[in-house]
Amino acid sequence: MRLRNKPWAQKLVLEHPEALLNEPDPEIKIPWQERFADFSKPLAIEIGSGKGQFIINWAKQHPEMNFIGVELQTTAAGMILRKKLADQIDNLQIMCADAANIALYLPPKSADIIFLNFSDPWPKTRHEKRRLTYKSFLDKYKQVLKDNGHIEFKTDNQGLFEYSLQSMNNYGMLFDFVSLDLHQCNSEIYKQNIETEYEHKFAERGNRIYCVHAHF
Amino acid sequence: MRLRNKPWAQKLVLEHPEALLNEPDPEIKIPWQERFADFSKPLAIEIGSGKGQFIINWAKQHPEMNFIGVELQTTAAGMILRKKLADQIDNLQIMCADAANIALYLPPKSADIIFLNFSDPWPKTRHEKRRLTYKSFLDKYKQVLKDNGHIEFKTDNQGLFEYSLQSMNNYGMLFDFVSLDLHQCNSEIYKQNIETEYEHKFAERGNRIYCVHAHF
Ligand SMILES: C[S@@+](CC[C@H](N)C(=O)[O-])C[C@H]1O[C@@H](n2cnc3c(N)ncnc32)[C@H](O)[C@@H]1O
Ligand SMILES: C[S@@+](CC[C@H](N)C(=O)[O-])C[C@H]1O[C@@H](n2cnc3c(N)ncnc32)[C@H](O)[C@@H]1O
Repeated sequence: MRLRNKPWAQKLVLEHPEALLNEPDPEIKIPWQERFADFSKPLAIEIGSGKGQFIINWAKQHPEMNFIGVELQTTAAGMILRKKLADQIDNLQIMCADAANIALYLPPKSADIIFLNFSDPWPKTRHEKRRLTYKSFLDKYKQVLKDNGHIEFKTDNQGLFEYSLQSMNNYGMLFDFVSLDLHQCNSEIYKQNIETEYEHKFAERGNRIYCVHAHF
Repeated sequence: MRLRNKPWAQKLVLEHPEALLNEPDPEIKIPWQERFADFSKPLAIEIGSGKGQFIINWAKQHPEMNFIGVELQTTAAGMILRKKLADQIDNLQIMCADAANIALYLPPKSADIIFLNFSDPWPKTRHEKRRLTYKSFLDKYKQVLKDNGHIEFKTDNQGLFEYSLQSMNNYGMLFDFVSLDLHQCNSEIYKQNIETEYEHKFAERGNRIYCVHAHF
């Protein structure tokens, strides 16, 4: 997803350093304790939040947790920021940054969940390294996750899902849940599902939603 | 699949002990060297061969390998036997036996491939232990497979496939290939695919064929 540049978003992003970290210098430690009312709460991170529907709704439904939405594109990050400010969602921080740096931005073993939702599929073999479930990304998620933390991954992209199952498995991750058709499954996990923008669109078109939960 | 009892099959099975081992005593070591022209060839075992289309065709196409088809039902085993005799397939042996005993029937580290094709799904949770990818079966496959051996599993059953991915993964098996739609995939693996009876029937109905190759 490449969003058209929105000047208001660029402006908003620059005006709210207290809510959104804009391409922070990976060399400088981020004072997360100061950015959340209580940083000791369970922490969930979404990588590639897009316009933020998922993370906004999670954060609203789970005041007992903290959330960080990481998004590369300024326009998308600005759209999440706008919603956060409008709805006064204090347990959500936004980072406009590359997920490749996540282990530099966050303390080791600090996160309980990492969400990957409808990540860009990068179908060409030569782009494998860009897929957010490539082993170099798993390395970083592993550093950031607590020992009992886990990853929750959803996509409608068959190729990316096949790849991710194999990549996570080959890395040594253990699957806690696998669904090849999340929206048709009876599990508690689907009952508590929160849709992303992409999920809503692709499920409406009749695409299956694939889902895996896994831990290191 | 429960086949109607066919008296000719029962009779044929009893008449050909040189080609088919009928419920062998698990206590007695089977002299496999005497049952194959050259037991040092690579060995593939199919668990639950049904009427045998798959293993018959594999055995014909791969004279450089040996094959054992394991099938619980006498009628099905008799149908494989009839084809084997008619086509003089010397590199195929049949066992009418329960796969639960496989590690008693075969020497440790003797097999290169174990095929599981369209295994009975046993969808009820209380029947989990009967699924051929339950961990007690994986224990046995592990004993029988060579160190560089692997399992090839195909099914159209979504629930069984989800279960099997998780069961194999949780057991510590490593995936070499995953397809969520084998018949639509470009891989070499599909180009060399040999259909089973169930596969043919369900693919014609438009069901997706799921496939995973994995090693211990
Ligand atoms: C296909 S969109 C999905 C958006 C949203 N998760 C959803 O499900 O509706 C993928 C998003 O991931 C972002 N993204 C891709 N690579 C990223 C990276 N390395 N770090 C942070 N965000 C990334 C893209 O900018 C895009 O907004
Ligand atoms: C659904 S049929 C599939 C037959 C064939 N593989 C195909 O794909 O057409 C499953 C077969 O596995 C056999 N089977 C089930 N459990 C078995 C076990 N524990 N040991 C050996 N065979 C078994 C059944 O008798 C049946 O013939």
